[in-house]
Amino acid sequence: MTDKINHIGIAVKNLDTSIPFYRDILKMQLETVEEVADQKVRVAMFICGESRIELLEATSEDSPIARFLEKNGEGIHHIAYQVTGLDTKLKELKESGVRLVDETPRPGAHGTRIAFLHPKSSGSVLTELCEEGH
Amino acid sequence: MTDKINHIGIAVKNLDTSIPFYRDILKMQLETVEEVADQKVRVAMFICGESRIELLEATSEDSPIARFLEKNGEGIHHIAYQVTGLDTKLKELKESGVRLVDETPRPGAHGTRIAFLHPKSSGSVLTELCEEGH
Repeated sequence: MTDKINHIGIAVKNLDTSIPFYRDILKMQLETVEEVADQKVRVAMFICGESRIELLEATSEDSPIARFLEKNGEGIHHIAYQVTGLDTKLKELKESGVRLVDETPRPGAHGTRIAFLHPKSSGSVLTELCEEGH
Repeated sequence: MTDKINHIGIAVKNLDTSIPFYRDILKMQLETVEEVADQKVRVAMFICGESRIELLEATSEDSPIARFLEKNGEGIHHIAYQVTGLDTKLKELKESGVRLVDETPRPGAHGTRIAFLHPKSSGSVLTELCEEGH
């Protein structure tokens, strides 16, 4: 059911400081830089094969990314896997005892629908499932 | 220069406990389980689109993975990007001031050649470059 790695989310203190490593050293194509107000983050997206690297900067002290940085410092925040049939999948996961942060999908960036699994059910790796929009 | 995400390395305490999440819940194909003696790890590889998920279990207390687990607990250990022209790339990176763990490639799994960048030069994300064998 997992089609591919959609993206890897990396928490950074400052996008402007972190972008050059991915753009100039790893030579990935910087696709977009945008603010996602309801998640209190500014996001830089890089293309990497069929996947993306998503740098996440907090825009507020109560952003989840600010809390992550305070606890862990900069580093990988989550992995997002692309799936088809997200609603059915979430139902199946719940029935099989997997703890979910989002029991029903919520809107993600670029028309996607997303849901996070609870790290308790995914070996301490914050895991997102996402489905492309139609 | 970065072709794709080759794999994501995830440190786990116990492969047998961690494999079911990826195999049965995310329904990824388990490709191989093998011991890499010189790195003191046992590795489970799952296929995920053009990339792989690599679960890493320490086989010795002085394994780099044992030290990681002690410090951080289970979680994402590194990202490996696939490149072409690894030797040239490492030379360029060194010349541009990037700190390297491996200044020349060393053998990786399945005939690959790999080199790690120093987390100081890669925003605290342990970053591996790897090139497929010929």
